[in-house]
Amino acid sequence: MRAYNFSAGPSMLPEEVLKQAAEEMLDYHGCGESVMEMSHRSATFQQIIDEAEQDLRTLLSIPDNYKVLFLQGGGTLQFSMVPLNLLNGSGKADYIVTGTWAKKAAQEAEKFGDIKVVASSEADTFTYIPKPKREEFREDADYVYICYNNTIYGTHYNEIPDVGDLTMVADMSSCILSEEIDVSKFGLIFAGAQKNVAPAGMTIVIIREDLIGRAKADCPISLDYAIHADKGSMYNTPPCYTIYVAGLVFKHILKNGGIAPLHEKDVAKADKLYGYLDASDFYKAPVAKEDRSLMNVVFVTGDKDLDKAFVAEAREQGLHNLGGHRSIGGMRASIYNAMPMEGVDQLIAFMEDFAKAHK
Amino acid sequence: MRAYNFSAGPSMLPEEVLKQAAEEMLDYHGCGESVMEMSHRSATFQQIIDEAEQDLRTLLSIPDNYKVLFLQGGGTLQFSMVPLNLLNGSGKADYIVTGTWAKKAAQEAEKFGDIKVVASSEADTFTYIPKPKREEFREDADYVYICYNNTIYGTHYNEIPDVGDLTMVADMSSCILSEEIDVSKFGLIFAGAQKNVAPAGMTIVIIREDLIGRAKADCPISLDYAIHADKGSMYNTPPCYTIYVAGLVFKHILKNGGIAPLHEKDVAKADKLYGYLDASDFYKAPVAKEDRSLMNVVFVTGDKDLDKAFVAEAREQGLHNLGGHRSIGGMRASIYNAMPMEGVDQLIAFMEDFAKAHK
Repeated sequence: MRAYNFSAGPSMLPEEVLKQAAEEMLDYHGCGESVMEMSHRSATFQQIIDEAEQDLRTLLSIPDNYKVLFLQGGGTLQFSMVPLNLLNGSGKADYIVTGTWAKKAAQEAEKFGDIKVVASSEADTFTYIPKPKREEFREDADYVYICYNNTIYGTHYNEIPDVGDLTMVADMSSCILSEEIDVSKFGLIFAGAQKNVAPAGMTIVIIREDLIGRAKADCPISLDYAIHADKGSMYNTPPCYTIYVAGLVFKHILKNGGIAPLHEKDVAKADKLYGYLDASDFYKAPVAKEDRSLMNVVFVTGDKDLDKAFVAEAREQGLHNLGGHRSIGGMRASIYNAMPMEGVDQLIAFMEDFAKAHK
Repeated sequence: MRAYNFSAGPSMLPEEVLKQAAEEMLDYHGCGESVMEMSHRSATFQQIIDEAEQDLRTLLSIPDNYKVLFLQGGGTLQFSMVPLNLLNGSGKADYIVTGTWAKKAAQEAEKFGDIKVVASSEADTFTYIPKPKREEFREDADYVYICYNNTIYGTHYNEIPDVGDLTMVADMSSCILSEEIDVSKFGLIFAGAQKNVAPAGMTIVIIREDLIGRAKADCPISLDYAIHADKGSMYNTPPCYTIYVAGLVFKHILKNGGIAPLHEKDVAKADKLYGYLDASDFYKAPVAKEDRSLMNVVFVTGDKDLDKAFVAEAREQGLHNLGGHRSIGGMRASIYNAMPMEGVDQLIAFMEDFAKAHK
């Protein structure tokens, strides 16, 4: 039986996609090869990667002056690639620190330039999104960096910060494809695949063309966006199979009407869960209401042992991976695109039973 | 019908492994999740990665003072990681250039230190392995770099160069698991997975412990071996599914007796094909006999149009991807571990027919 997997990532993929991948495993469309075995220089794979890019462009209405790259190394490699490529004017960049990953990104960037943390919600355990004003950013900053959805703390930018004509860089790893976004507001968007897109091992980078080709001279070759952009993400062998699964997910979303209906479903799932939490006198959702994430719903009972019991008992009911990040504990229900409403309903039913039993 | 896929990589995987991956796609061992969906922090995935490492250690008799890492970024990222981590004494490294990839590795290393090409076979189109003597390497070189099997040119180090007590680094992407190797002769071995191990998207690094933890201060965090070694290849989300498939391949090889019988089969396949080529007055194998690769068998007819016709007609017979690398043309039959003897037999039968028809 398939579990409801509330893992923060890797996490659930559409069952239809998994079934198709399994069916095509030994012989992709009658070509006699698995996608795992296929030369990345073959016409068949070229079509797979071209369609994946085109479908993603359609889904997110990506303007023509943006390149779409499928890279390796996860978000963590982007923590380095962003400064190595974009710190090429004043050498300054401004970061908003809204959680563990934004903080790590800022720390990494310090190796390569003059980094200023313009705002941070760390003193309040990252329970809200700070909202610095336009004038708080340095006029000559090469870019402003934000983490659009904070997987660990369950916060999300429900309003895009005003950075004027500064270049904005956003880590959208844990919310990409869950909402329509105005790509033109960003210079660079990146997202690890392992939440809403595909298995781990591929990172999507959407980058405005004028930001490409300006890497530092000693930038490691694989970390230069220009190398990948020039070769259509195939300077060297790309993570072909992960790109293929991502392509299946994109087609699955398109077939079901694109991002808008998916977002509606995501909102409905999150509303139901937050609604239950807010009405409860047993559970508590610590995140400021206006900054809540649709994807990662964080909550606690207020008793650490009870939290642990919750996670363990839920697992026995087929509700997996409800523990909070190991750095903060508590509970976290990651309800990415592939989590059906039934999963949320079963979670709430379990929460009611658990609350009754432990009140 | 499954094709015989002679691609240089990605290439064939054992059919048994593909079948198992397909069967387990929706539910791994009854846990209700696909390996694609599994948290990399789960006990189930921890067991998958631990077993993959242990099985690889067994297969290659990796000594205890070596770490095994499963990284992203392919061989190309290693071209940067090797100098960024190992150029920490004299800042000098010596390279033997035996083909495109060794040359690219040397060029990349020049960004980070004093690189000397000690020997190169480029003037002879890389048709042999140069064999510099011990005294030709710089006494104070931080390491000597070789590409152990040259995928494009079909050459292989059939004798390990004598570098004295210098640290030897070897790219074994296209020969790993095809032969027993004395790991203790190397300081660092790396190998992209997409030939003998798994689909693309994962790189194996086997590194002696004393070489870890000496990266340059401004080394991007993901490019520091210490970060990955400290966290058991899980500093950030690893390419979980590729590691899982690699693990299935390792178990498949172990079940069939390990590397020794596999090597015997590889030798038999290569001997048959080279034997046919050497006896032919139609085809020519340009590589020096003592330096031939077991994995990549390069040959030509001497007529470029005929070479192209060969590749196209072979494809129609279910013999895929026999074209040489786009930089040199001609033909290349990559006969990695998963290519059965029947594939080689069918190739030779086709070669005979083609020769008769075009003599």
